Amino acid sequence: MKVKVSRKAHFNAAHRLYRPDWDDQKNDEVFGKCNNPHYHGHNYELVVSVSGEIDKATGFVMDLKVLKDLIREQVEDALDHKNLNLQVPDFKNLNPTAENIAVVIWNRLRPHIAKDKGLEVVLYETPRNFVTYSG
Amino acid sequence: MKVKVSRKAHFNAAHRLYRPDWDDQKNDEVFGKCNNPHYHGHNYELVVSVSGEIDKATGFVMDLKVLKDLIREQVEDALDHKNLNLQVPDFKNLNPTAENIAVVIWNRLRPHIAKDKGLEVVLYETPRNFVTYSG
Amino acid sequence: MKVKVSRKAHFNAAHRLYRPDWDDQKNDEVFGKCNNPHYHGHNYELVVSVSGEIDKATGFVMDLKVLKDLIREQVEDALDHKNLNLQVPDFKNLNPTAENIAVVIWNRLRPHIAKDKGLEVVLYETPRNFVTYSG
Amino acid sequence: MKVKVSRKAHFNAAHRLYRPDWDDQKNDEVFGKCNNPHYHGHNYELVVSVSGEIDKATGFVMDLKVLKDLIREQVEDALDHKNLNLQVPDFKNLNPTAENIAVVIWNRLRPHIAKDKGLEVVLYETPRNFVTYSG
Amino acid sequence: MKVKVSRKAHFNAAHRLYRPDWDDQKNDEVFGKCNNPHYHGHNYELVVSVSGEIDKATGFVMDLKVLKDLIREQVEDALDHKNLNLQVPDFKNLNPTAENIAVVIWNRLRPHIAKDKGLEVVLYETPRNFVTYSG
Amino acid sequence: MKVKVSRKAHFNAAHRLYRPDWDDQKNDEVFGKCNNPHYHGHNYELVVSVSGEIDKATGFVMDLKVLKDLIREQVEDALDHKNLNLQVPDFKNLNPTAENIAVVIWNRLRPHIAKDKGLEVVLYETPRNFVTYSG
Repeated sequence: MKVKVSRKAHFNAAHRLYRPDWDDQKNDEVFGKCNNPHYHGHNYELVVSVSGEIDKATGFVMDLKVLKDLIREQVEDALDHKNLNLQVPDFKNLNPTAENIAVVIWNRLRPHIAKDKGLEVVLYETPRNFVTYSG
Repeated sequence: MKVKVSRKAHFNAAHRLYRPDWDDQKNDEVFGKCNNPHYHGHNYELVVSVSGEIDKATGFVMDLKVLKDLIREQVEDALDHKNLNLQVPDFKNLNPTAENIAVVIWNRLRPHIAKDKGLEVVLYETPRNFVTYSG
Repeated sequence: MKVKVSRKAHFNAAHRLYRPDWDDQKNDEVFGKCNNPHYHGHNYELVVSVSGEIDKATGFVMDLKVLKDLIREQVEDALDHKNLNLQVPDFKNLNPTAENIAVVIWNRLRPHIAKDKGLEVVLYETPRNFVTYSG
Repeated sequence: MKVKVSRKAHFNAAHRLYRPDWDDQKNDEVFGKCNNPHYHGHNYELVVSVSGEIDKATGFVMDLKVLKDLIREQVEDALDHKNLNLQVPDFKNLNPTAENIAVVIWNRLRPHIAKDKGLEVVLYETPRNFVTYSG
Repeated sequence: MKVKVSRKAHFNAAHRLYRPDWDDQKNDEVFGKCNNPHYHGHNYELVVSVSGEIDKATGFVMDLKVLKDLIREQVEDALDHKNLNLQVPDFKNLNPTAENIAVVIWNRLRPHIAKDKGLEVVLYETPRNFVTYSG
Repeated sequence: MKVKVSRKAHFNAAHRLYRPDWDDQKNDEVFGKCNNPHYHGHNYELVVSVSGEIDKATGFVMDLKVLKDLIREQVEDALDHKNLNLQVPDFKNLNPTAENIAVVIWNRLRPHIAKDKGLEVVLYETPRNFVTYSG
């Protein structure tokens, strides 16, 4: 009986899409107004899902209070109210697109989830744009 | 042309997470305030999905009016405005975690869905916590 | 420049609608399945709004972090994961309808809000049923 | 690193479910009030997802601005504020059920998405009824 | 203790914005694609609110089950899955804009609500466009 | 017959709460992590409402297409994907709290709305925090 359990969370952050090795013109062509050098920002909504067998003793795949705390420690404390480009080391050499942020979040959570469990991250950059990563 | 059709429904219920074969201390350690002996409750939101080929004659995978009625008969009539621990026989020996409730709902619906169709249940215990079961 | 600032919160609780001074038949007639003697429950969603002049120094009508903490202390800690009929003294002699719960919440918050500010409470019992109280 | 990127869009349309080769009685039996000869309508909400490898240069699976424009050109311009039965050639001989509309939308978008990318369409006919098609 | 109680409902309908006493050019200028002669449609979401004193005996301003049934009889049965222009007599000589539909709904409900109670109707034509009428 | 018509819009922006005439310690005390000198950001959701008599000729209080264009020109073009502190002159000497942003938006729209119409702005800074200003 494999079940997927999911927990929603959120954080706010500023970012800018650009590559330092491209000139301004190329960054503007590719990233448009997302390349604003003074940054813009989002309310990122996050859904983290863990899949596996139901534990017979507890009836849980994973205690969602534990998952909630894990998301706070590994994701919210690191990213909330931050400038992703300037203040989050994971993006020092990585463009903070929604795709890359989802991968970073997945990599931060993966070591803390039991090896026999699956992990999926859905990240909403806006209510209309979102990405999904499962490793 | 395999398509998945989905229908949302909901029910309200009281429940309590605990195991009668554990003492109070252990139940409190594992289930925290969800072990309140006087119960608490939720507005459970449910998404039931059936997947299969589109019927050439009707253009339906499954008539959603039929699925709506099936959910009412098999799920809402059985669980709505009930105390899951005391009044729903499925949980007589089963802890009513979101995971276990999703499995119970899936088992209730499965015999009424055509054998060549897939069935998936998503159950929101709160707007932030939800589980998915596909058999 | 009068502005209304609003903060959403939520809590889960069990309740039952009935009057001890009415017999079972009358309680069933008036309250239907909401009179289930074993209780049912809801995810109550709450919107608390405070209205007043913008403080020139801070740009705030009221610091929403302060309002968030106030809601947690006065409302969530008192009602979350509780049986309203049995465990919340405010409902000892008061039927816990959505209307009465909204009035109780307003009365709990009012003494902690500045006298020159307005206070409004919106309480969702389900996504389809909600009530509004402004004193 | 395979990631799925998703974009929400919407359109409004009128339609009617019926088959011209069935008589009125049979159409009413199968399609009920959805067979109203004067039509009814919906706000269709659409989620289009493209899955594939993250482009190392841009950090995108697919530029969501490009996907947004593609949905507008191929879907919204063709279906928005239209009568699906009378004004959209795709449904000349096809009953405009949610299932069939989702397949039509997928077929309209597929030629414009890179061949090594996956494509999924989720179509909400109402907030409670929706369908998913992935080819 | 004046409280406002609210109930959500919905219906689907086709409509067209135009005036028979204007020529096609003028109708197109004023109503744009909403003047499509073959109609388009919406999922109308409706919030009906009744305000008044809490009844001491029941704890209700108005029993929401009664309000739910009233909305079904007076609004849903009359408008759901209908062509507003052709099949709903209220719009025989009235352009079915969101504003006018809200007034029609309010007028249909008002005689069935106690005279000492207030009545408000909020009608969503789309998730982004809505209107409010209180008499 | 006074009706309120409402239109939703949104924009993304970076901001920082602080006063240049306060030292860092005081800014941190009052604004907490919202005072991050490298900025953070939000998806601002906006609801603009105009109230007045229904025009007998059109059935509109105000054409929502006109209101949509007005919001884009006066609000979205000025604030979307911007750093509010650095790039929007309205906030040169004004702390960009949600309250102040709502007032700025109201002031930008007011001259373009007919004098006999009411105007209300609701601004969501996050899905849980929002403000309302009516002049």
